[in-house]
Amino acid sequence: MANIHQVAKQAGVSIATVSRVLNNTSKVSEKTRHKVEKAIRELNYAPSMLGRNLRNSESRLLLVLIHTFSNPYYTEIINGIEDYAIENNYNILLCETDDNLQREDIFLHMVRNKLADGIISMNPTVHVDKLKELSESHSIVLCSDYYEDANIPYIAIDNTEAAYRAVKYLITMGNKKIGLINFNENLLYAKQRRIGFEKALNEFQLPICDEWIHYTDGLSFQDGVEAMRRMLRSKNRPTAVFIISDTLAIGAIKELHAQGIKVPQEMAIIGFDNIAFSSMTTPALTTVSQPKYQMGYRSAKMVIDRIQGLPVENVIMDYELIIRESTLG
Amino acid sequence: MANIHQVAKQAGVSIATVSRVLNNTSKVSEKTRHKVEKAIRELNYAPSMLGRNLRNSESRLLLVLIHTFSNPYYTEIINGIEDYAIENNYNILLCETDDNLQREDIFLHMVRNKLADGIISMNPTVHVDKLKELSESHSIVLCSDYYEDANIPYIAIDNTEAAYRAVKYLITMGNKKIGLINFNENLLYAKQRRIGFEKALNEFQLPICDEWIHYTDGLSFQDGVEAMRRMLRSKNRPTAVFIISDTLAIGAIKELHAQGIKVPQEMAIIGFDNIAFSSMTTPALTTVSQPKYQMGYRSAKMVIDRIQGLPVENVIMDYELIIRESTLG
Repeated sequence: MANIHQVAKQAGVSIATVSRVLNNTSKVSEKTRHKVEKAIRELNYAPSMLGRNLRNSESRLLLVLIHTFSNPYYTEIINGIEDYAIENNYNILLCETDDNLQREDIFLHMVRNKLADGIISMNPTVHVDKLKELSESHSIVLCSDYYEDANIPYIAIDNTEAAYRAVKYLITMGNKKIGLINFNENLLYAKQRRIGFEKALNEFQLPICDEWIHYTDGLSFQDGVEAMRRMLRSKNRPTAVFIISDTLAIGAIKELHAQGIKVPQEMAIIGFDNIAFSSMTTPALTTVSQPKYQMGYRSAKMVIDRIQGLPVENVIMDYELIIRESTLG
Repeated sequence: MANIHQVAKQAGVSIATVSRVLNNTSKVSEKTRHKVEKAIRELNYAPSMLGRNLRNSESRLLLVLIHTFSNPYYTEIINGIEDYAIENNYNILLCETDDNLQREDIFLHMVRNKLADGIISMNPTVHVDKLKELSESHSIVLCSDYYEDANIPYIAIDNTEAAYRAVKYLITMGNKKIGLINFNENLLYAKQRRIGFEKALNEFQLPICDEWIHYTDGLSFQDGVEAMRRMLRSKNRPTAVFIISDTLAIGAIKELHAQGIKVPQEMAIIGFDNIAFSSMTTPALTTVSQPKYQMGYRSAKMVIDRIQGLPVENVIMDYELIIRESTLG
């Protein structure tokens, strides 16, 4: 196989110039870059990344921890992470933890052993203590959920405020009986959204009724179907429900259709996340939009800044209430 | 940090036994494994994976090439790949190529340089020639689409036959005017599904009408909305449409709703892929189901078998027609 000397010779440049083209580290004229790339192609030269990585002690790899690939909420965040990473010559390794401690350990070990340079975690149920400890010496950033008491940088929206605004909107539409479908409150965002929900009801002196509050074990469509089915067993029904994830909300709407209950005339629904599918349902789903792509992009910047020893601040992003047919009568 | 000697001492076993537990290479009794794992945990020992990989010349990493994370078709396939990989002590790196040749090059280089042991490609628009060449010396497997003339092992369904059956079902439901929404026929599966569509129409001497055949530039919901919008511009409309991807079909149904056209009474719709959303639409989508999880699981087995020098055969999986509301009057 060709080596860097042959590439330099064929391109008529120095080895240092070939190296600069390969590493994207310094300015090279378009014309020179073109010549070098042509020589690389013609000679079928493959730079020894492994050798390079060992010399630099850099893997140029970022781990992205998510709970499960099957939640479309992650898609745009990952696109954002990836775009920033690729622009800065990093690759990303998507790691599905599935709440499996052994899998998580593998990924944390990879960072400890310099097989990866940093972690963006979107799965804060990961071993909290191990992650905190690792964060003292390694580059870790939390995206979209975080720990209140940990010293790990995060990027998220103000979930309490966003939930408060969503529920307040239901109230201004005339709803006085409002339900909640929520997920595991071990996750900070779930807890915060419930607090925002209660804040709005309290402000307008509306009842917080246990019959109208249901929790799910997961975030799949089917979990939403089942939560709504449980809610509908009660004769005393809310006229609107705030559901803390679009996947659950879409399942809930499916169950309302199945039981012949009209959305939004008999029950209005607000979801959360603005996943792509939320505009494709019938009726289209009113939801709270997080700037998912931007959150991903900025979290990748944060983790790479940390790798480079730059200071990193927590970031709170704006959200938006997207009003569609599931709340308009 | 603890080293392997301290782990062996604490567990009361030899260093070779610790190594066997770490590498999963040889039989160790459950009791011994338990002792070693306990010692590893107590001493917070992190085996030097990098060192180990260099000695073995193994990265234990598989690359999974996909076009874009945002297509939910991939979700279950990836789950299958990941389960088999993890069971066999491999990690997977999800690589979004986005049809970007430079990105693809990075991933192919990783295999050439032993940063990864093999590739499962679900994105056959990748540099065909480079992939074929790499496949001669490295472990590559194609999943769900493939090249007819390349010597790269693949796993897929019989797309021609599946499309034929889907369209034949529309015909047996009484439809005589049947349309097609298809994607780029550079992809073999798209070409095969069009051939299956035509085969069914020819068999029943039904017209293949250009006005009823529309192509999209992508596979997003919005691409489906736009294709259906184009189809509806014609006054002469089909009574049923075969759409080669559920994401496109869901977008098409949304556009039919928007224009007040009843599904299936005025137009029946069949999709393809049985993604999770497809049962959540109103009406729920009739579709062709590929055994996505199994395809992923078996493609991971195929690529790991190739890495280990075992012979690997092409695999054709069964498909299933899932009949839901979008075709039942």
